[in-house]
Amino acid sequence: MKQVFTGIAELYTPRERLERAAFAVQDGRFVWVGAEDSLPEEYRGWPRTDLGGRGAVPGLVDAHTHLVYGGDRLGEYLKRARGERYEAILAAGGGIYSTVRATALASEEELYQLAKARAALFLAQGVTSLEVKSGYGLLPEAELKMLRVIRRLGETLPQRVFPTLLAHVVPKGWEREKYVEMFCQELIPEVARSGLAEAVDVFCDQGAFTLEETRQILGAALSHGLKIKVHAEQIAHTGATKLAAGLGALSADHLEQSTPADWQALAKSGTVGTVLPGASVILRKPFPDVRAMWDAGVRVAIATDHNPGSSPLYSPWLGMQLTVSLGRLSVEEALVAHTENAALALGRPDLGRVEVGAWADFVVVDSGSALEALYRWGHTPLHAVYVGGAPVFSPI
Amino acid sequence: MKQVFTGIAELYTPRERLERAAFAVQDGRFVWVGAEDSLPEEYRGWPRTDLGGRGAVPGLVDAHTHLVYGGDRLGEYLKRARGERYEAILAAGGGIYSTVRATALASEEELYQLAKARAALFLAQGVTSLEVKSGYGLLPEAELKMLRVIRRLGETLPQRVFPTLLAHVVPKGWEREKYVEMFCQELIPEVARSGLAEAVDVFCDQGAFTLEETRQILGAALSHGLKIKVHAEQIAHTGATKLAAGLGALSADHLEQSTPADWQALAKSGTVGTVLPGASVILRKPFPDVRAMWDAGVRVAIATDHNPGSSPLYSPWLGMQLTVSLGRLSVEEALVAHTENAALALGRPDLGRVEVGAWADFVVVDSGSALEALYRWGHTPLHAVYVGGAPVFSPI
Repeated sequence: MKQVFTGIAELYTPRERLERAAFAVQDGRFVWVGAEDSLPEEYRGWPRTDLGGRGAVPGLVDAHTHLVYGGDRLGEYLKRARGERYEAILAAGGGIYSTVRATALASEEELYQLAKARAALFLAQGVTSLEVKSGYGLLPEAELKMLRVIRRLGETLPQRVFPTLLAHVVPKGWEREKYVEMFCQELIPEVARSGLAEAVDVFCDQGAFTLEETRQILGAALSHGLKIKVHAEQIAHTGATKLAAGLGALSADHLEQSTPADWQALAKSGTVGTVLPGASVILRKPFPDVRAMWDAGVRVAIATDHNPGSSPLYSPWLGMQLTVSLGRLSVEEALVAHTENAALALGRPDLGRVEVGAWADFVVVDSGSALEALYRWGHTPLHAVYVGGAPVFSPI
Repeated sequence: MKQVFTGIAELYTPRERLERAAFAVQDGRFVWVGAEDSLPEEYRGWPRTDLGGRGAVPGLVDAHTHLVYGGDRLGEYLKRARGERYEAILAAGGGIYSTVRATALASEEELYQLAKARAALFLAQGVTSLEVKSGYGLLPEAELKMLRVIRRLGETLPQRVFPTLLAHVVPKGWEREKYVEMFCQELIPEVARSGLAEAVDVFCDQGAFTLEETRQILGAALSHGLKIKVHAEQIAHTGATKLAAGLGALSADHLEQSTPADWQALAKSGTVGTVLPGASVILRKPFPDVRAMWDAGVRVAIATDHNPGSSPLYSPWLGMQLTVSLGRLSVEEALVAHTENAALALGRPDLGRVEVGAWADFVVVDSGSALEALYRWGHTPLHAVYVGGAPVFSPI
């Protein structure tokens, strides 16, 4: 399958900005990218799609989502806005536990249909790859049920899906030690054997797992050949970021309470620092100092953290805009953080960039300016979304 | 024209919450609102529309917009995000002056078509009434041209339009005194005579008009029977809020630098305090302490301040959400601020509420929960928008 795309008024690769650009795609990957008037002879006879003088950016990568869940948490959202603390709601059996109950009550088919509908909204926003975590099951069979839903999403969605097994909290009625033991000795081996997840993530925080428990779970994941990620320094500073960097994790996510020493560790290891502007703003937490993090050499990614409790965020563009305003990145840096760097948080340097060898996932903006969708707050003017060179979405 | 609307699972009036509600509409106004099972005999035979178990809220009122303009300011947006200060851009002839030039270059027809397209996006977000300011003309004929575009919008849009003459900045090449004199002695009388505006607004700030100039312009407006509004305390604290309160202005808008003494003056006078979350966040300014303002007794409104420079915000829902997160209002308070209180900022107690006697402008949410669109960040699930009891928008 050979194609040339022309008529691109402005292209962000994302690190480079090209005017009047073109690219050639073969078998789903970019084989040439450059200025349209320097299109090499060999591609001139290929079938052409003219993008009409519009802008283009790489397909967005959402490297941290909890897309599969039952129920909603609107009531809790209203309570928190009136001033109730998340920690108090959590302690009273609300928060994540209410989603665990609603997810347990939903059938696999229902969970699949709900997540599929959400993924369609993300596709309409230009998200061509997304990570999806388990973690609302807690019990082994319930976690496997979530992972089967995620596998089915990966098999059926137009998007690329990266499945992650999440150790979220210790379920009620379990001894902590027994749960961690079960997670390491039963669940992780089973998930590794069945190929239901590519990575294991641990919510290391006050009210969730301790640093030592996190170390145990991540160690088990690594010993079974799985990649690792960590929820780090969201509510309390636990040291999870340094642990993640030391173990070569793909990413440490949240980072609201992270310190310059944490950033140095991330910069040194190459572990991506993923900020989740939805959770910071919606929970009224301090916004991470993303500017300082970036300047310290951290590979910063931005993700929606889509979930029904702390981040009912459906727009990666809004996440980028919040990070520009409250985290002081430039617009161009925010785009890198939701494409190329986000792909690195999934261990996928072949995604999130318009570059020879990378997969041809891209977004055509309905404007001559490629960054128009980052300028318009609350309105995302997209013309089309492509995965592997094939059109997978265009607005009516 | 008589109609009854039933099947409303949840209704915010906005101050009251009703379950299984219904209302009756006659000649464009609500004539009865209550629980569906207590619908009085006299309305039972009227034509019915069943809203299918969905939620409803009053039509949103956007009491501060600069919807008519030529060009965009994407380039400036990128510069500011890289750290350039707005004041510096303004001083270098960018900022508002670039919009003044682009607006001068556009024909009346072009300005109308551009603003009409923007208004359609606002309608799709449930905005049933909006204020539109002039202010990018500066010169008398250019201001009148903008006001004629705004009049045509009012005559042709499905929404209610409130036109405001804005004294924005002193044009280059004019002596300040001469300009204020022209504004007071020529422009305001002409606008009052022709009925092209209902109110006069002054941008009282560093780099714009002084407090004394503002007093002169507002005085002229009042003496010609026009209502008044003020851009107050955005960049510097000028005392404009107290002036507005003292003169009985409809509203004082922005308020980033406002003080408790300003809030007391607003609370005492009943002048609405309108916060503009888009401008605060997008310009990286301190967010006004909306919680304290509300608790001090100020009637707080929220508006988009839609404009190409400081607030390219297209979503009132996002404005409310930002005010909940960063200004610490509750979700229910934010809804009051974008409906009932916003209507008061236009001097229209007959808008922004679902109440006997008010105009039947309302939004049907595509969920059984009326506040669903405030819970979902970056996705606004609406089912239909009504103005005066007539459907004016529904998504495809």
